[in-house]
Amino acid sequence: MSGKKRILSGMRPTGPLHLGNLHGALNQWVALQDEYECFYFVADWHALTSNYEDPVGLDEFTLEMAADWLSAGLSPEKSTLFVQSHVKEHAELFLILSMITPLSWLERNPTYKDQMAQLVGKDVSTFGFLGYPVLQAADIIMYLADAVPVGEDQIPHVEITREIARRFNHLYGPVFREPQVLLTKATARILGIDRRKMSKSYDNAIYLGDPPETIAERTSRMITDPQRARKSDPGDPGVCNVFEFHKLYTDPEKVKEIDAGCRSAALGCVECKKNLAVSLAEGLAPIREKRAHYMERPDQVKQILADGTQKARAVARQTMEAVRAGVRL
Amino acid sequence: MSGKKRILSGMRPTGPLHLGNLHGALNQWVALQDEYECFYFVADWHALTSNYEDPVGLDEFTLEMAADWLSAGLSPEKSTLFVQSHVKEHAELFLILSMITPLSWLERNPTYKDQMAQLVGKDVSTFGFLGYPVLQAADIIMYLADAVPVGEDQIPHVEITREIARRFNHLYGPVFREPQVLLTKATARILGIDRRKMSKSYDNAIYLGDPPETIAERTSRMITDPQRARKSDPGDPGVCNVFEFHKLYTDPEKVKEIDAGCRSAALGCVECKKNLAVSLAEGLAPIREKRAHYMERPDQVKQILADGTQKARAVARQTMEAVRAGVRL
Ligand code: SF4
Ligand code: SF4
Repeated sequence: MSGKKRILSGMRPTGPLHLGNLHGALNQWVALQDEYECFYFVADWHALTSNYEDPVGLDEFTLEMAADWLSAGLSPEKSTLFVQSHVKEHAELFLILSMITPLSWLERNPTYKDQMAQLVGKDVSTFGFLGYPVLQAADIIMYLADAVPVGEDQIPHVEITREIARRFNHLYGPVFREPQVLLTKATARILGIDRRKMSKSYDNAIYLGDPPETIAERTSRMITDPQRARKSDPGDPGVCNVFEFHKLYTDPEKVKEIDAGCRSAALGCVECKKNLAVSLAEGLAPIREKRAHYMERPDQVKQILADGTQKARAVARQTMEAVRAGVRL
Repeated sequence: MSGKKRILSGMRPTGPLHLGNLHGALNQWVALQDEYECFYFVADWHALTSNYEDPVGLDEFTLEMAADWLSAGLSPEKSTLFVQSHVKEHAELFLILSMITPLSWLERNPTYKDQMAQLVGKDVSTFGFLGYPVLQAADIIMYLADAVPVGEDQIPHVEITREIARRFNHLYGPVFREPQVLLTKATARILGIDRRKMSKSYDNAIYLGDPPETIAERTSRMITDPQRARKSDPGDPGVCNVFEFHKLYTDPEKVKEIDAGCRSAALGCVECKKNLAVSLAEGLAPIREKRAHYMERPDQVKQILADGTQKARAVARQTMEAVRAGVRL
């Protein structure tokens, strides 16, 4: 045990990661590695909740996501990287917590109905989907995490986790810690090429592993300032998604020039996007190269996950011994 | 694998077994052992669903129930006797089946609301209680059981199990067998000493391990033909709970005499019950002695359960490999 506080977070393996994932969560995970003892896991059982009708290749997605993680800077020396479904204790704790979690806590969960609405077309009104927060609670409290890095919208889930932990402790003795919220703010507000939220299902994403040609093609189709109809119209970088990317990937001096050129109509969007494609391809080159390295060496990635899983399991086993003693099973 | 069909059934460890359990289920389990390959398990996780607020001694109850089983004639040479919570695969399969089980199947479960009503006073409206049939399905299909010996009231649960098995097979390939109902009829209609259903919670039961004095005391308090106010009134053995016990425990010749004596008012209820106490104490003597043997040797019982659990786990592991391959986790 280090003296650092422990945090835990997971990501569903639903396909290769894109820049929305990178700037929305992954970069923050990387940054947290030095300050915290980090447990990061591939939430493959969770992926079943919404994906169960087409689970083609959860195992492949898991490998690919782990390659993405490693490429973006998650380090097996610093953090414990593991696969949820390989630590069976999560299922056991889920089952036990199921028995003490009032239905009403789940039914009033504000994100439950939101998600139901978002996932229209997929048949998600399953028992497991309703119990999503119970599984999440099991994931978190299993490792006696001090805190969970989440966005604002996830706060209610952490609150249910705290309530479940409290209830278990009340019924069976003080086994669990109530995790705190470690609020993470997206470092940049980037959107997909169609200005909607970047998402695999919208087919509007740029992926960590995209080669320069793909980046160029996708960038060329990006929607810019919607008010700027002609090149001769001045643009407003403040409302332009392309400009948001420039701020992340282009040299600051050059960003100033783009800002001025756009506002004076000296710079056209076509050229501006071509420049962005170059910046992006360059900026992502280190990740892309590492990713290629790992994708060619699946056994190496598997070994990293296996090592992390073993470390996670050791903690989980210890927790479950206390749980079973408390429940007297 | 024997050529016999495989059946599976479980019992919740909620305390020592009584004559209601013996004649309602256990004797039938014993009888099925020769015709079927039987898997019988202590449903300790299930006991958590209704008992979670006072789980004092689930581990002790498990041992005691196993001692009851062995005393009544379940044989570790014939059957696989195991403990649900010791085969973690049940939790994993429960989790996976949760994801594919529509909430509506559980909400429409006719026994759900019945049970809720019966268990008034206990706070059972938990997520796990709603998911009871999912865990039950996992228990059953894990062993690719051909059939499940159940009473009439349990048929809807087996139907949900069949539906869940079918749905899994449809989504992920043919892993599971749809179990048939093996309808068991209670061989006798015995009641508690107060003429309500025999139940630990009504404090109206006679237990397998009760010593003769306790049997005599309990029997003396049994309600007989409610219409028979005085000894000089003739009685009706056809409506008398005491007579039901005589039919099970007293010599047939003697039963005929009781029938006649009761109807002619030659036999009084006090004497009739004294006779029953003797028959019961005698009839239960072999069970009581075996039970004392096992209760004094908890390590032997534990070993029997451990051996059975190992056999069960071997089957469960094989099933879960097929499940994981199907789900591609
Ligand atoms: S010039 Fe660049 S910043 Fe300005 S609107 Fe076009 S793409 Fe956006
Ligand atoms: S004499 Fe025996 S059988 Fe008849 S009513 Fe009394 S207890 Fe019942």
